Amino acid sequence: MGMKKLTPWTSWYVEWIDDGDASFKAANQLYAMEKTPYQEVFVVNLLTLGKALIIDGKVQSTLFDEFVYHESLVHPPLLAHGNPERVLILGGGEGATLREVLRYKTVKKAVMVDIDEKVVEFSKKYLQEWHHNSFFDKRAEVVIEDGRKYLENAGKSDEKFDAIVIDLVDPLAGSPAVKLYTREFYQLVKGALKEGGVMVTQATSPVLYQEMFATIHSTIKSVFKIARPYAVYMRSYNGLWGFVFGSEEKDPLQLNESEVERRIRELLVNPEDLRYYDGDAHIGMFKIPKNLKQALKKYTDISTDEKPKYLEI
Amino acid sequence: MGMKKLTPWTSWYVEWIDDGDASFKAANQLYAMEKTPYQEVFVVNLLTLGKALIIDGKVQSTLFDEFVYHESLVHPPLLAHGNPERVLILGGGEGATLREVLRYKTVKKAVMVDIDEKVVEFSKKYLQEWHHNSFFDKRAEVVIEDGRKYLENAGKSDEKFDAIVIDLVDPLAGSPAVKLYTREFYQLVKGALKEGGVMVTQATSPVLYQEMFATIHSTIKSVFKIARPYAVYMRSYNGLWGFVFGSEEKDPLQLNESEVERRIRELLVNPEDLRYYDGDAHIGMFKIPKNLKQALKKYTDISTDEKPKYLEI
Amino acid sequence: MGMKKLTPWTSWYVEWIDDGDASFKAANQLYAMEKTPYQEVFVVNLLTLGKALIIDGKVQSTLFDEFVYHESLVHPPLLAHGNPERVLILGGGEGATLREVLRYKTVKKAVMVDIDEKVVEFSKKYLQEWHHNSFFDKRAEVVIEDGRKYLENAGKSDEKFDAIVIDLVDPLAGSPAVKLYTREFYQLVKGALKEGGVMVTQATSPVLYQEMFATIHSTIKSVFKIARPYAVYMRSYNGLWGFVFGSEEKDPLQLNESEVERRIRELLVNPEDLRYYDGDAHIGMFKIPKNLKQALKKYTDISTDEKPKYLEI
Amino acid sequence: MGMKKLTPWTSWYVEWIDDGDASFKAANQLYAMEKTPYQEVFVVNLLTLGKALIIDGKVQSTLFDEFVYHESLVHPPLLAHGNPERVLILGGGEGATLREVLRYKTVKKAVMVDIDEKVVEFSKKYLQEWHHNSFFDKRAEVVIEDGRKYLENAGKSDEKFDAIVIDLVDPLAGSPAVKLYTREFYQLVKGALKEGGVMVTQATSPVLYQEMFATIHSTIKSVFKIARPYAVYMRSYNGLWGFVFGSEEKDPLQLNESEVERRIRELLVNPEDLRYYDGDAHIGMFKIPKNLKQALKKYTDISTDEKPKYLEI
Repeated sequence: MGMKKLTPWTSWYVEWIDDGDASFKAANQLYAMEKTPYQEVFVVNLLTLGKALIIDGKVQSTLFDEFVYHESLVHPPLLAHGNPERVLILGGGEGATLREVLRYKTVKKAVMVDIDEKVVEFSKKYLQEWHHNSFFDKRAEVVIEDGRKYLENAGKSDEKFDAIVIDLVDPLAGSPAVKLYTREFYQLVKGALKEGGVMVTQATSPVLYQEMFATIHSTIKSVFKIARPYAVYMRSYNGLWGFVFGSEEKDPLQLNESEVERRIRELLVNPEDLRYYDGDAHIGMFKIPKNLKQALKKYTDISTDEKPKYLEI
Repeated sequence: MGMKKLTPWTSWYVEWIDDGDASFKAANQLYAMEKTPYQEVFVVNLLTLGKALIIDGKVQSTLFDEFVYHESLVHPPLLAHGNPERVLILGGGEGATLREVLRYKTVKKAVMVDIDEKVVEFSKKYLQEWHHNSFFDKRAEVVIEDGRKYLENAGKSDEKFDAIVIDLVDPLAGSPAVKLYTREFYQLVKGALKEGGVMVTQATSPVLYQEMFATIHSTIKSVFKIARPYAVYMRSYNGLWGFVFGSEEKDPLQLNESEVERRIRELLVNPEDLRYYDGDAHIGMFKIPKNLKQALKKYTDISTDEKPKYLEI
Repeated sequence: MGMKKLTPWTSWYVEWIDDGDASFKAANQLYAMEKTPYQEVFVVNLLTLGKALIIDGKVQSTLFDEFVYHESLVHPPLLAHGNPERVLILGGGEGATLREVLRYKTVKKAVMVDIDEKVVEFSKKYLQEWHHNSFFDKRAEVVIEDGRKYLENAGKSDEKFDAIVIDLVDPLAGSPAVKLYTREFYQLVKGALKEGGVMVTQATSPVLYQEMFATIHSTIKSVFKIARPYAVYMRSYNGLWGFVFGSEEKDPLQLNESEVERRIRELLVNPEDLRYYDGDAHIGMFKIPKNLKQALKKYTDISTDEKPKYLEI
Repeated sequence: MGMKKLTPWTSWYVEWIDDGDASFKAANQLYAMEKTPYQEVFVVNLLTLGKALIIDGKVQSTLFDEFVYHESLVHPPLLAHGNPERVLILGGGEGATLREVLRYKTVKKAVMVDIDEKVVEFSKKYLQEWHHNSFFDKRAEVVIEDGRKYLENAGKSDEKFDAIVIDLVDPLAGSPAVKLYTREFYQLVKGALKEGGVMVTQATSPVLYQEMFATIHSTIKSVFKIARPYAVYMRSYNGLWGFVFGSEEKDPLQLNESEVERRIRELLVNPEDLRYYDGDAHIGMFKIPKNLKQALKKYTDISTDEKPKYLEI
């Protein structure tokens, strides 16, 4: 009753959410693959989500809703800042974070730091739907380097930033990314920000990995005066997905719908090109329901270099 | 890397979201089963979601987040009403919708209409964690009857309602539930409401089944002056889940955080027992992002008895 | 092309054959379940294999091919014996091994020993298609006792047997069954056999679990003069399934097709009721191809009480 | 208990055996892929079966047991012939059928006909473990042509064959291969055989697709005086796999174990290189158990060009 018949697909991508919990998605085309010194990268077509970038067996983003993720990552901090000129992106291999940053008329320089040169080459070649050629914008610069090292040097130089956007893989047990979610790391981020600067990081899932999400929030709160958790629904990631904003001065909670709309119109080149983010979306993503507020109060551990927190799945 | 090893579970519940898209969840215990004249009912334990009610192979709700669903279904309309005395529930077999309705000091009578007597018996016996004995509250009355027939009669009598809460299965192709999502049905709902009355219905998923969600919205909008779509994230339903509110007078968008909080304190018996819903949750669930607003504008078909809309999965 | 569409079944039984290798089978009905002090027992309907007995999450047998297994287990040893009067069955909860044993006109007594009284009660009630009421045959006796203890006592008494049929679960790591596949155990079996007696055991899979199969063979060979491995294909067990015959005198390899056919006609009550086993099947199951002969030579370890072998999946 | 923990593999190959019955196998490496005008070809590593050739989503063979299939396809007919000099292979893209044919000292010419030039090129390049360079043997000739057309011409010429080995994909609904399993096709095969010639075809599964297997048998029996069904267990194909031998004169049932062993030693270059096939394997594969003999009697339909039979999954 009500059920249409299914096609017997033979190739499936499986995302293990937890022990005894998996999402199976049929892949009906392989577009490209490459093995870099750091990771294994595929572009496939997932039947229900469209073209998808898969790195080391994990979906990074899909055409179904990459815009939800990338707009939600970039615009709350950049609009809250109000006049971003120099922006640093850590990670963001698809080039879609860069694409969103370059929408700002105010941006003069966007530096994207990624450790894996091959992934950037691969993205340029195969992920046009993601980056929209933003790699080739004159204001864009790609630096192949370890993100943490880059921050250390940037903090010591005069080359500081108005906004730092951290678009990295999850802090999985054993991954080098674990060290990019610690207090010491966020102190480096703070050191590389100009006065009035803002930062944001993807922060895993507030429902699936609630404790990790809360830890990232506490850790950022231990470094910045203002820390704001927020979340949007991402079908490609099988659930609600979280972010944490940090700053010494700026606060996205100060923006109401009409102010968000006003800044979008004022700061962005083609404001109508935004697909997900608007005044309502902004307000909605920062509204944390009762049970999540309680969880944020309950899990107050801080991730440090010495005792880092990580996900076990 | 980062992956914990998995247990080789042998019994899996599979939710087919679409062709080529499925959620697999391991079930490690069977608590109860019953075959009624209308449906097949199981209570199992899903490893990651806890105890779950499964009817005709579909998860109805789980202890992991049934409170998110039931609080989001009941409180926006009842608080928007402000003084609900007589409430009608269509469906709601678990008894959890009834549980939320009975939280109101103002409620004098809550009538729950379900066609399947056996399911209600089954719930009373096995779903204590859902209904919290609300079936045995003196204000509760269970009527075994077809919901649509009940409405027809109620509309003609003096026994009208302040609020009607529609908690039914999805309008799947071939299901009798399809006739409980049409314009004619909502006209019956309207006819059974007192002046100032409010209604709400679950409305499938605004992401997975966007066109169906939009149709339910348009259909309610064609009957009521005020129609308000809203959504919350439900892991048990593999995504964002939608509702539509309808009324001739009342509007949940008129309530800000503090007014919601004030009414919770004033109208509910033990306001602190709410687990998900609060002022922030209320605001957040009604904030519709740009792409969904566009979809609501785009799909304006109305479901009618003659030409009903339904889901094919 | 060539692919029919699939039904979106929601309840699946999964057999994990190995890491990264699983068989998924849809279950579309639950007939019965019971939790005994020793195990959890279900009777379900598997879409492609029919009614199936599942104990502790493992398919024991299905109506699709239980006759292949039970006929192959019982008839090679009993026909090789030629005049079985007293037969002992260890395990065999479904009653189908007993059914096959009772086909023999010569059999005066068939003792079935099972540790789990509840499973036997359950079988009597729900597995009529398996046991064909053989539990109620006057020659049958069910003893609720640990099989190994029963053998110890039988060996010391005058109550010895012409044939011992061992129909137990696999020797999985941690299972008490591990001690029913050791040299010491087979010595007890030998001690409980009359002169000219024969034994047989199920022996896991010669392809999926080749080393375990070879170990059971070596172990029986270390106790009996004659040890004969054999195998049949069992779809319900996802592959080739093995057995090992042991005896001091009798040898199933001595029987050619016509002698097997002759004995079937002479010894069985309704010889035409056999469904799988005949002269050709007998010859075929004992023909071990080159690679398996080599494996049997290669893995010569013996399982002992002190250093038992077991399966890790 | 007894269960080792599983690795959370993300890429799975799924073989749908029937509605509600599927085999899931994890793939942990992609070696090569190519899209030809006729099909899509992958070489991947399946965790439990090793390197595997997948064409249009179906496993063709794997290193785990390709030798079982190819030896069982080639040696029964060629040994039954006794002196094969000219051999024709239809299909057999991996080159492993060719490899087995070229083991014969007597073979002077082996012609392999395949419609897909690209697949042959692909095999030469990536399937060395299968073909062992047999493509480059001086006695081998590859012809790119439709197999049926090739046979028509061969039958009219003097270029007839001692043996024709048909190694094609299954006759799936809608596939051009359906016309390579009909009576008219086998008449062409017969017309292209020398006196005393033999033929063999793979024949789907006698357990999973019993009716199709029986039809291929009946069809060959309607054309050749001698038709012999046989079967071996193939884990890569999820079950027992069948073949049918046909000839006007020669009969593999006339060979006993020692005659098979004698011919292997006499006719093959390095007889010890065989891995599966020997005298025992030969006898075993032709022993058809009672239920399969009954099925072969029951399904006597013949596939014809006008009314061809095919598989629906």
